[in-house]
Amino acid sequence: MAQRIGKRTLGLLNHPVITASAGVAGKKEGEGPLGKDFDYIFDDTTAGEKTWEKAESTIHKEAIIRAKEKSGKDFDEFQLIFAGDLLNQCVGSTFGLRDFGVPFAGVYGACSTMALGLCMAAVFVDSGAANACIASTSSHFCSAEKQFRFPVEYGSQRTPAAQWTVTGAGAAVVENEGKGICIEKVCFGRIMDLGVTDANNMGAAMAPAAFDTISAFFDDTGMSVDDLDMIVTGDLGFVGSRLLCEMFVDEKGIDISKKHCDCGIMIYNLDEQDVNSGGSGCGCSASVLCSHILKRMNSGELKRVLFTATGALMSPVSSMQGESIPGIAHSVLLVNRKEG
Amino acid sequence: MAQRIGKRTLGLLNHPVITASAGVAGKKEGEGPLGKDFDYIFDDTTAGEKTWEKAESTIHKEAIIRAKEKSGKDFDEFQLIFAGDLLNQCVGSTFGLRDFGVPFAGVYGACSTMALGLCMAAVFVDSGAANACIASTSSHFCSAEKQFRFPVEYGSQRTPAAQWTVTGAGAAVVENEGKGICIEKVCFGRIMDLGVTDANNMGAAMAPAAFDTISAFFDDTGMSVDDLDMIVTGDLGFVGSRLLCEMFVDEKGIDISKKHCDCGIMIYNLDEQDVNSGGSGCGCSASVLCSHILKRMNSGELKRVLFTATGALMSPVSSMQGESIPGIAHSVLLVNRKEG
Repeated sequence: MAQRIGKRTLGLLNHPVITASAGVAGKKEGEGPLGKDFDYIFDDTTAGEKTWEKAESTIHKEAIIRAKEKSGKDFDEFQLIFAGDLLNQCVGSTFGLRDFGVPFAGVYGACSTMALGLCMAAVFVDSGAANACIASTSSHFCSAEKQFRFPVEYGSQRTPAAQWTVTGAGAAVVENEGKGICIEKVCFGRIMDLGVTDANNMGAAMAPAAFDTISAFFDDTGMSVDDLDMIVTGDLGFVGSRLLCEMFVDEKGIDISKKHCDCGIMIYNLDEQDVNSGGSGCGCSASVLCSHILKRMNSGELKRVLFTATGALMSPVSSMQGESIPGIAHSVLLVNRKEG
Repeated sequence: MAQRIGKRTLGLLNHPVITASAGVAGKKEGEGPLGKDFDYIFDDTTAGEKTWEKAESTIHKEAIIRAKEKSGKDFDEFQLIFAGDLLNQCVGSTFGLRDFGVPFAGVYGACSTMALGLCMAAVFVDSGAANACIASTSSHFCSAEKQFRFPVEYGSQRTPAAQWTVTGAGAAVVENEGKGICIEKVCFGRIMDLGVTDANNMGAAMAPAAFDTISAFFDDTGMSVDDLDMIVTGDLGFVGSRLLCEMFVDEKGIDISKKHCDCGIMIYNLDEQDVNSGGSGCGCSASVLCSHILKRMNSGELKRVLFTATGALMSPVSSMQGESIPGIAHSVLLVNRKEG
């Protein structure tokens, strides 16, 4: 049963549990600081496929299969998969999931998709609409570059604020019982548009959305930074993360910097891996959450984590037509209840 | 509280209600048989905008505003909008909804989006996660032609099985109480791919998905064709509709033809409006459901309608790469409870 807390937060009284998860990644991500935590690293980022889009589908599929295997369930025991991605018409997901025979609820949140899918899965499981669901998403550097910027073969230059799309995917199994990390609360985001038009500075476009949702979560629940072990954003990168911390100081008088991490910063070694402002893409927060962060939570090292993935809700066409970049962020409160 | 019925159907025991809805459409749709039922007709299908994408956003926005006005609620009384569309990165929705300040859960089901959004909204309201939600979607002939086929200025020829993308949008307000049409049951679809590769014959690609979901609904609930006043699909068109009826005869020995209608056939005069196999697009089933069908239900003429919108889960890129077209269909059982 969902309990509405304040204006926007939902408390999930039946405590849906992430009983299994898997994060897979590409070669570059495997060489980064979190390499050892991924469930599988595709040293060949074509994943044996002939196109980058098919490679992304294969990587997405791999994450789901690995999470499912860990859960010990068969596909016919899942009532729904909540998935989506940034490829046009979400083909990274639809072709990745095609063979599973599990009912599919497509979700779209750009790079916030992992959090959106988890919010949905948690509400469905909590309400009894499902016993077991999967939330998943993916991205691929080459399919994203080709679609959003230039084919990689062009060797185009990148600006300092630009981010590097993660080749990777994450999948989480959400169940109504079992061992794992509880989804205690969720908070859906609003579309925030402060007029940023630089498609090479997504972090700046998305930071206001992260601020809006995390602020709403604090206001609704009465929780503070001190109640959390980590506030982890999806892919604000270096520029967007600094902006988010500044907004909390300026608008709320709160210093979140000591608890704030960003998957886009964590996944690469920013000094050595030439990724400018850090990682991005649906697969960034998905692969980091479903491997590194959930591992640290399951071990008891982290007890309460506010996972807030952000998305930029534009398209190449909208940007070419002079539109600004609306952002969104969805938050999920993850708790290791066993460890208190 | 959602009650799981059989393998895939959900019974919504708290009876979420569609308290208000609005369907808007373009000039051609306004000249069709349902013209008098639309809440607004854009005689100028640019909607006063400079690009087709912005026109689609404006049309989408208009449907939401009109549904909201009818509900008598302010935007801050809605907990969520479930919306999506077929433009790359769903910009018809994200830019259409940007100003409302309502939390946004993006959904992606291609042309099945209206049914997917209604399923989601119904489960959220039924479970207490929301008191009031909106489900909406849109399509525009010119933005779709430009993105999926050719810019209309090219004047390219169409094949007989091709469909005509509806310029239109629909929005439905789903609440936990009030007068209107109940959402009694929902059934989420699986991805079905029978290997159809002709992107000019979407009806054939989607018919197996409609068959799969409607069959699951009948199997789960024990209901039959005789228990329904109408089985309405989204946009199978003439070709896909005939296939669906044939599949029911061949596989199940059931004649659904006397109860089956298709929004893509209803919205145009197929003999005179030069639309080949009929209408398509997210806005097809959305505009027809949210105006014509719900009007007939509210008047008591139709008491039990199974609304099953279908989607083709491909992209122009996947088709060019030789992939087949996966289909999906989500079903919603709508009931006028007042009229028994």
